Amino acid sequence: MTKGRLEAFSDAVIAIIITIMVLELRVPHEPTVDALRPLIPNFLSYLLSFAYLGIYWNNHHHLLQAIKHVNGRILWANMHLLFWLSLIPFGTAWMGENSFASWPVALYGMVLLLAATAYFILTRTLITAHGRDSVLAKAVGADFKGRISVVFYVAAIPLAFVAAWIACAIFVLVAVMWLVPDLRIERTLAG
Amino acid sequence: MTKGRLEAFSDAVIAIIITIMVLELRVPHEPTVDALRPLIPNFLSYLLSFAYLGIYWNNHHHLLQAIKHVNGRILWANMHLLFWLSLIPFGTAWMGENSFASWPVALYGMVLLLAATAYFILTRTLITAHGRDSVLAKAVGADFKGRISVVFYVAAIPLAFVAAWIACAIFVLVAVMWLVPDLRIERTLAG
Amino acid sequence: MTKGRLEAFSDAVIAIIITIMVLELRVPHEPTVDALRPLIPNFLSYLLSFAYLGIYWNNHHHLLQAIKHVNGRILWANMHLLFWLSLIPFGTAWMGENSFASWPVALYGMVLLLAATAYFILTRTLITAHGRDSVLAKAVGADFKGRISVVFYVAAIPLAFVAAWIACAIFVLVAVMWLVPDLRIERTLAG
Amino acid sequence: MTKGRLEAFSDAVIAIIITIMVLELRVPHEPTVDALRPLIPNFLSYLLSFAYLGIYWNNHHHLLQAIKHVNGRILWANMHLLFWLSLIPFGTAWMGENSFASWPVALYGMVLLLAATAYFILTRTLITAHGRDSVLAKAVGADFKGRISVVFYVAAIPLAFVAAWIACAIFVLVAVMWLVPDLRIERTLAG
Repeated sequence: MTKGRLEAFSDAVIAIIITIMVLELRVPHEPTVDALRPLIPNFLSYLLSFAYLGIYWNNHHHLLQAIKHVNGRILWANMHLLFWLSLIPFGTAWMGENSFASWPVALYGMVLLLAATAYFILTRTLITAHGRDSVLAKAVGADFKGRISVVFYVAAIPLAFVAAWIACAIFVLVAVMWLVPDLRIERTLAG
Repeated sequence: MTKGRLEAFSDAVIAIIITIMVLELRVPHEPTVDALRPLIPNFLSYLLSFAYLGIYWNNHHHLLQAIKHVNGRILWANMHLLFWLSLIPFGTAWMGENSFASWPVALYGMVLLLAATAYFILTRTLITAHGRDSVLAKAVGADFKGRISVVFYVAAIPLAFVAAWIACAIFVLVAVMWLVPDLRIERTLAG
Repeated sequence: MTKGRLEAFSDAVIAIIITIMVLELRVPHEPTVDALRPLIPNFLSYLLSFAYLGIYWNNHHHLLQAIKHVNGRILWANMHLLFWLSLIPFGTAWMGENSFASWPVALYGMVLLLAATAYFILTRTLITAHGRDSVLAKAVGADFKGRISVVFYVAAIPLAFVAAWIACAIFVLVAVMWLVPDLRIERTLAG
Repeated sequence: MTKGRLEAFSDAVIAIIITIMVLELRVPHEPTVDALRPLIPNFLSYLLSFAYLGIYWNNHHHLLQAIKHVNGRILWANMHLLFWLSLIPFGTAWMGENSFASWPVALYGMVLLLAATAYFILTRTLITAHGRDSVLAKAVGADFKGRISVVFYVAAIPLAFVAAWIACAIFVLVAVMWLVPDLRIERTLAG
């Protein structure tokens, strides 16, 4: 019951975040294809964030599948994750409107880094509550992809001031790495 | 469980998309009926998109009723559909604000075409996961309406530059064709 | 299952409608109480619409509690209701920003009338699907409050051009009449 | 069933409130760190409100876990709470845009006070419906934290005109007091 409501609330928040981002794709006044062209960076920025939020929803879904109970700490670790995810639309819009300039790209990387950190904290909180021998702990394992993502974000932030496109390429790379579906928990549960 | 969460997330996203479109119906400053008149194209555009999103929700609902399990591929095929649906408010607003001019109508048709393609991919992904002899595969069948819709959208896009009203008439026609409720799956399940 | 998803989708749409209305309460730029005063009509308009949407959610909730199955017609009768409810934020904002001027008040009454009509159609569609002897049919009964509400809205629309405050008083009266909780179905189910 | 839908609706409304607040973090036009600096009060204001809404969701979740049935009064006591919570984004934005000036801070305190009062009324309505000897009544108990919060808000409102930062410090203090998870009901249920 409790777990169901945590999932429902998280789903609702992620669904809203993913959808209100589209409100930042400001509708141009003229009905010409030229009026659409300046929106290309906004569109690419939206596409990237849509993928990231999809990845978070997908991973969150797998993670909660393996848990048995929920306590106050878990609720707040989850809220903490949702807080940083809720700043993705802001980062997306700033980055899109300024055609991937250095500061907005660095801020976007910072938000991704903080969200990844919050996800890591949530994972540890869940493992602490379920025990190191639980299905969950085995399923999460060493969490190689989680650790490498953090390294990539940390690298991307200063690189945004060297060449913003390198930082963006790193964000795309990390997203692609996760889009290869996260089957770790599924396999452990099935095996 | 997993299927329930996929449904819940999709419902939430579609519900938000359908509702935020109304934010693009900008409230006029004067309290006169004349101030309302320029909003007629926006209203018609909203009505059309509301119908389309209702159709997608309805069909999605029937489609998922017949499935047994969910995997990573299915989750992403579903996200892909939601991505194109999330661009409907943008297309709707651009089309409404420019009184159904050619480029906005063509873009709207393009978004509908990409959403229909994503729906087709989702259907195929589900059939692959459940087998060609499954209830689902039989229920979907040859998917005549799905195929004919794609043909209509492909025709509507160039026609928008000949006469935008023809393209709009095609969009209305396709919507009406679907509003005749999609009973294929229901019947197969009942029979 | 099907019924659950219809409820979930309706809940989500009503929850979003009720919440996005608050976005029309434009935040004043100055930090003075004088800057807040022009928002009083917007606030009253918001309060009225919040009550109406609460009533619709409440009644919808009671109505669906008594149903057994869902078909295509029911889904679309429900979408039709949600369509008119989705225009309430527009009516609310126009009425609030123009301090309850005649045309906006009349439009608001029109939206309420169309929503009430859609609710009536939904009720009839449900009764047709469940039979005239069903618990649902008995619970809904003659639907006195539903009929009298429609009469009130029909009266309020022309009265808005005589004196807008009379129309507003009628809207408040109807809301108060419904806030006396709709216990008809509960009683029939309990008895 | 009924309880589930009340939870689902409340979750959806709180999820939307918490997320649309981020729309008030207006994206700056320039891609410089200086353009970001004026947003610091908006960000702090958002953070505070995010915490408050998280606390309300958390407490609401615990409260409803202990209830057995829902009636019309409970539905409306819940709607009343959601109404005041829905004004938090307005208060947050006004307070943030005016860098915590006296009037906006006082209004924010007023909204918190009214939300706390509505929560208290909801608690009493639930206890009345379940009996003074119910698990719920024992779990809520004397509700020391609820009472002290109201005292703090009442003190903060006039203090906002003496020194706004004192009122803000009180809001932070109350939030911290609640972030220590509300385990009262959990313990009584477990014990």
